[in-house]
Amino acid sequence: MNPPRRLVPFFLLFQLALLPAGTLAQLVNTDYHALAEKISRKGLMENYAYALLSRLTRIGPRLTGSPQAAAAVELMRQEMLDLGLENVHLEPTVVGRWVRGEVEEGRLVSSLLGTIPLSICALGGSIATPEDGVQAGVLEVKSFQELQALSDKARGKIIFFNRPMDPTHIDTFQAYSEAAEQRVLGAVEAAKAGGVAALIRSLAFGESDFPHTGLMKYSPDAVQLPSAAISTRGANILSRSLKNDPELIVYLRTSCVTLSPVTSYNVVGEIKGTEKPDEIILLGAHLDSWDLGEGAHDDGAGCAHVIEALRLLKLTDIHPKRTVRGVLYMDEEFGGTGGRDYARSERRKGERHLAAVESDRGGFLPVGFGVGGGDAVERKVQSWHPLLQRLGIYWIKPGGGGVDISPLAESGTVLMEMVPDSQRYFDAHHCSQDVLAAVHPRELELGAIAMAVLGSLLAQEGI
Amino acid sequence: MNPPRRLVPFFLLFQLALLPAGTLAQLVNTDYHALAEKISRKGLMENYAYALLSRLTRIGPRLTGSPQAAAAVELMRQEMLDLGLENVHLEPTVVGRWVRGEVEEGRLVSSLLGTIPLSICALGGSIATPEDGVQAGVLEVKSFQELQALSDKARGKIIFFNRPMDPTHIDTFQAYSEAAEQRVLGAVEAAKAGGVAALIRSLAFGESDFPHTGLMKYSPDAVQLPSAAISTRGANILSRSLKNDPELIVYLRTSCVTLSPVTSYNVVGEIKGTEKPDEIILLGAHLDSWDLGEGAHDDGAGCAHVIEALRLLKLTDIHPKRTVRGVLYMDEEFGGTGGRDYARSERRKGERHLAAVESDRGGFLPVGFGVGGGDAVERKVQSWHPLLQRLGIYWIKPGGGGVDISPLAESGTVLMEMVPDSQRYFDAHHCSQDVLAAVHPRELELGAIAMAVLGSLLAQEGI
Repeated sequence: MNPPRRLVPFFLLFQLALLPAGTLAQLVNTDYHALAEKISRKGLMENYAYALLSRLTRIGPRLTGSPQAAAAVELMRQEMLDLGLENVHLEPTVVGRWVRGEVEEGRLVSSLLGTIPLSICALGGSIATPEDGVQAGVLEVKSFQELQALSDKARGKIIFFNRPMDPTHIDTFQAYSEAAEQRVLGAVEAAKAGGVAALIRSLAFGESDFPHTGLMKYSPDAVQLPSAAISTRGANILSRSLKNDPELIVYLRTSCVTLSPVTSYNVVGEIKGTEKPDEIILLGAHLDSWDLGEGAHDDGAGCAHVIEALRLLKLTDIHPKRTVRGVLYMDEEFGGTGGRDYARSERRKGERHLAAVESDRGGFLPVGFGVGGGDAVERKVQSWHPLLQRLGIYWIKPGGGGVDISPLAESGTVLMEMVPDSQRYFDAHHCSQDVLAAVHPRELELGAIAMAVLGSLLAQEGI
Repeated sequence: MNPPRRLVPFFLLFQLALLPAGTLAQLVNTDYHALAEKISRKGLMENYAYALLSRLTRIGPRLTGSPQAAAAVELMRQEMLDLGLENVHLEPTVVGRWVRGEVEEGRLVSSLLGTIPLSICALGGSIATPEDGVQAGVLEVKSFQELQALSDKARGKIIFFNRPMDPTHIDTFQAYSEAAEQRVLGAVEAAKAGGVAALIRSLAFGESDFPHTGLMKYSPDAVQLPSAAISTRGANILSRSLKNDPELIVYLRTSCVTLSPVTSYNVVGEIKGTEKPDEIILLGAHLDSWDLGEGAHDDGAGCAHVIEALRLLKLTDIHPKRTVRGVLYMDEEFGGTGGRDYARSERRKGERHLAAVESDRGGFLPVGFGVGGGDAVERKVQSWHPLLQRLGIYWIKPGGGGVDISPLAESGTVLMEMVPDSQRYFDAHHCSQDVLAAVHPRELELGAIAMAVLGSLLAQEGI
């Protein structure tokens, strides 16, 4: 009654036939296959990643600088201690603080169509509207180029950026990256054109009524305008209404505020290497989240991946040659200070970070790893693919990185990234739908298992 | 602003370098790449599969022989006509009829623990309990072997089959196949041991309170016992309670009934081949479902895949050389009569079914195709993998089939199967959770796109 075990030899032989002879000998000698099997069975049997994520999400959303973010730091520090990790400590990082406030109102008012409520939310970092709101006509555009061409019509208007994410991309992150400039720089472009506020179509597919927040930026060269996201449904209503009544008015009111910076922390814990303790394999994710939803996929899932990977490595008695370190970074969403401060810290003296693997694409089915560092590194990781493939990892490709770990690249660290399937990610991303119920226990656990196996290979074999 | 198009040549060249020269020439000449791109863009832009599934599930569950199944036949027939498919017709099949009835009650009664309700449902095909229910002590077993060894303790008892699906299998269908005999043959084994009813742990992972139904069978060699599924949570409660009070009593009451057979229909429609109209490429799924939930994943999703694949082929003006036929089978869940009657029908005279591709594993992210027919066939389909890989199809492996299309194997049809990722499937399978809300529009559409592209390759190239 154990068919998977029976199937292994055939499958492994088939895969190994494609590898260079040296790699074959090495994999068989050190019995990584048995290790991967042990990690996988233990993980799927216990589903610990989901239990941990459940405790983390119960704190509520973990906006950088918030009391909940501080609670999450303490929860994860205690968790690392309870799991018996070594060198558990906090590393300070001073983070910006922004609070949404109680008031978020949007509506369109038309003499032809009546009054229609619009579902909006302030974008992260935005100033508030004046206390009695902004009320103005609307100019709809799909791009900054279009706005510049229409700039004579922009003065005094709310600039409505309505370019949808392109649904024809199978990789949804590609669609996101093509549309995200509207959110990040929309307020700057709107100000340059003489607008009074920026209203941005939420970065999501389909039609739903949840506005998606996210970071926006100001420029010293332009006045600061209030900037808000509108749900995709709201954007569709507004766009249709403008066709029927170009003279309609939109009313926006928000009460968000930027407060003084505070000290927060990256949370660090590790399994010390037995032979080369100063060579570090870093598994990373970010502990802060946006303030809508519970930050379950973004990036509670990544934190659960990191902690569960370390737990599995510890429980399977691997005693890695190199140190495997988990770092839960603060402030990925709001400035990336945690990642920069970690890389710059005095504590890094005498440490050599060989590789850093980030998980920041949600807790969905893991399908691949992006691997930086060039051809030779990619070939080495490719030689491990048979082991990862049995865990559901379909591909290893060039690429990899992530906001938190990217400051390590300067000192020669190879950056990698775990890539889950992306179809559902932008349903939850930065909105009220990013909750535990949107995470599947087995999909989440498979991500942790893949991180653990890659982490152990990196720790034993180097890169 | 169209990076995917820009990326194509590099990607395609890289993939094509791995193919034999003949295949390379052929793929380039007929420009299948452009075709796949067109199908994919159209599908993802319009998301028609989900809109269709939404209309289908609004009918309610489609238990074989039920009025809802008849409504679904008519909906799909009209749909095929409205889409301009050819040779749209119904093929009769006489199906069994079983109705759940109004009463489903379960509880455990213990002098130590009190009375605890248990969430149960009758299994498909079961007789009802007597009108005042069955009330008896419980024997818990994990296997038929264990039951046989304990047969002296079984007499007069409710036999509680409590072997969980093994969560350590990454392929959840493997776990299902190892546990399913309890549901199918539990009542027979319970009767042989002298039991009075069979109570089966639902075939699902984790702990939830939804009982999962499914087909059970009787044997002429054993008396017929009422047979019911208990939710995994109920099974855990009952198992724990038995440890504390082995003398506890379980009370079961069901009112299901088997009625006389009725005539139902397979729904057929096609795009006629321009060169070899009698050579058929069949895309199949089943239209009937269980009576809990909405049959959204099982197998409404498959029906949406089939219809949407035909719609996409029609809209992209492929004019296939061979006929591409969609068949929505009746009665997969309750006996497979639709599949057998289709294969045996007089209408098959003069037709040659080259290949049949079934979708009956839900509407989740498509990841692979199982391909029967031996090495040469598999190599041919493998040579198409670069085209399918761009659509997210990670693998082509030996295997494939499905209840509906398997009777075609006798006449030499190559059987294939689309395989979506399986992690979430058994959350919904045969229970009240199999609803439209559990289906993701993009995941569903990607399945239809993959079916359309494979179907067009089979229609143009044969097998």
